[in-house]
Amino acid sequence: MAVIECVPNISEGRRTNVIEAVRAALSAVPGLRVLDVQSDASHNRSVFTLAGDADAMKAGIPKLFESALAAIDLRTHQGEHPRLGAVDVVPFIPIEGVTMEACVELAKAVAADVAARFSLPVYLYEDASSNPARKNLEDIRRGEFEGLAAKMTQPAWVPDYGPATPHQTAGATVIGARMPLIAYNINLATNRLDVAKKIASAIRMSSGGLRYVKAMGIALEDRGIVQVSMNLTNYEKTPIFRVFDLVKREAARYGVTVLESEIVGLVPAAALMQTAEYFLQLEGFTPGQVLENKLSSRRAE
Amino acid sequence: MAVIECVPNISEGRRTNVIEAVRAALSAVPGLRVLDVQSDASHNRSVFTLAGDADAMKAGIPKLFESALAAIDLRTHQGEHPRLGAVDVVPFIPIEGVTMEACVELAKAVAADVAARFSLPVYLYEDASSNPARKNLEDIRRGEFEGLAAKMTQPAWVPDYGPATPHQTAGATVIGARMPLIAYNINLATNRLDVAKKIASAIRMSSGGLRYVKAMGIALEDRGIVQVSMNLTNYEKTPIFRVFDLVKREAARYGVTVLESEIVGLVPAAALMQTAEYFLQLEGFTPGQVLENKLSSRRAE
Repeated sequence: MAVIECVPNISEGRRTNVIEAVRAALSAVPGLRVLDVQSDASHNRSVFTLAGDADAMKAGIPKLFESALAAIDLRTHQGEHPRLGAVDVVPFIPIEGVTMEACVELAKAVAADVAARFSLPVYLYEDASSNPARKNLEDIRRGEFEGLAAKMTQPAWVPDYGPATPHQTAGATVIGARMPLIAYNINLATNRLDVAKKIASAIRMSSGGLRYVKAMGIALEDRGIVQVSMNLTNYEKTPIFRVFDLVKREAARYGVTVLESEIVGLVPAAALMQTAEYFLQLEGFTPGQVLENKLSSRRAE
Repeated sequence: MAVIECVPNISEGRRTNVIEAVRAALSAVPGLRVLDVQSDASHNRSVFTLAGDADAMKAGIPKLFESALAAIDLRTHQGEHPRLGAVDVVPFIPIEGVTMEACVELAKAVAADVAARFSLPVYLYEDASSNPARKNLEDIRRGEFEGLAAKMTQPAWVPDYGPATPHQTAGATVIGARMPLIAYNINLATNRLDVAKKIASAIRMSSGGLRYVKAMGIALEDRGIVQVSMNLTNYEKTPIFRVFDLVKREAARYGVTVLESEIVGLVPAAALMQTAEYFLQLEGFTPGQVLENKLSSRRAE
């Protein structure tokens, strides 16, 4: 059975009745599981974590738009987090038994559907992007709701679906497909912040490092050590073990050792499997050899 | 949901109608999945791989005995594989959401049940064993069906359940609980068989090595290399990464490097997770952080 994760962000983090109404609308959809809801009052934003197959997503996401758009008016919305829309961003993430291509198709189908139903401009992003200049969420969202009407007059910002002008209360929405993010930190046995910053600079794509790494060097003041704090945006192409080995090697250049590493939040099983495969020099290993995979695939028969 | 694996071995590998009757009896049990059946004609033996919870096992295993005992007569049975009973051995293996203690209780309950139903002597083994001298399957099975009547006259071989004399056609059965086995081989970049044998001797418990390792050194003639061929009988207590590191270190002693390693057949996900955790020096990692675990646990709500 295919499992797709979806993490819609809506521009409401204060009114619990609105957040609960959205949750209730999603929970009522057959086959759609609401795994988590996190609301932040200062951001005035809520993040839903959903799981299900493509049909469940196609049925559920329009319900989310329906209940969020009925309650949120961006003309009076205030919060610390940048936002373009009442439903701000909707990423689909392939987890199990589903390809990235299928998630891209799903993103486009949902985008076309909600654009038509709600007369809402929709931009595609990340792997679903129609245009390299509109791949990154930050580029699409720059100027936010308040700058959207002016931005949309530019030919480069004609939306992928829906009208060429903002929705009066709901702005525009960004929908797409991406790999799961891994938040990965490596702690160094030193208090030298300059070393953490130099390693971060060496490892991240933006300054010449690995393609799917974002990194910064920070101090953990209370422990008297420093950390290379990273987001790994595609663990299949830039695997976690290569990041670990490269950081360790760069640290050795300064006479510094790795104290420990940590994964913050969730990690796909495959990212850890590939790590075991690498360090054990495993030849000819397949996911079908993992006992739990065999049990779960047979379960579906 | 608890998942227990059970791998009963029956003394019939030739008559497909008998093997199919046993399979059909098992398949009819609600909640019991028959994952695999492997029959060997020269061994005259079949190995069933089953999965389910304790209730499914309690319902299914007596059905297996019923159909196997009706068709197998050990007085005329011939085959290369040692055997004590028509149903020779029944191990229960904890896989997911179930403790070893629960599998030991299950083994005892099933043993008591089949001993009473079929007037069959039953010995407990491995983690379910009642006696250190009766922990290993090989010790219990020594002498085989043909020597069983004489062996059972000794006080040390009074069975755990059932009559103190062999079942006329079905002998006796060995039932117990054990950890999943991992068949793990490490190939060395050398053709020196003496090196593989010395490393095997250093790593295995029987000659002073790690507690849950069985190992031998063999030649892979066609590739011109040698292999340390192992069974890891408890990956929680003797983890795969420690075995790999120790073999690598012993090999270095002879100027030999590890070419690759391989896992034959199935491996529990946890054995690979703990390997990634070790090599990445992960601190504070929990199984709940594996995305698939989160998805499957929520599925049960």
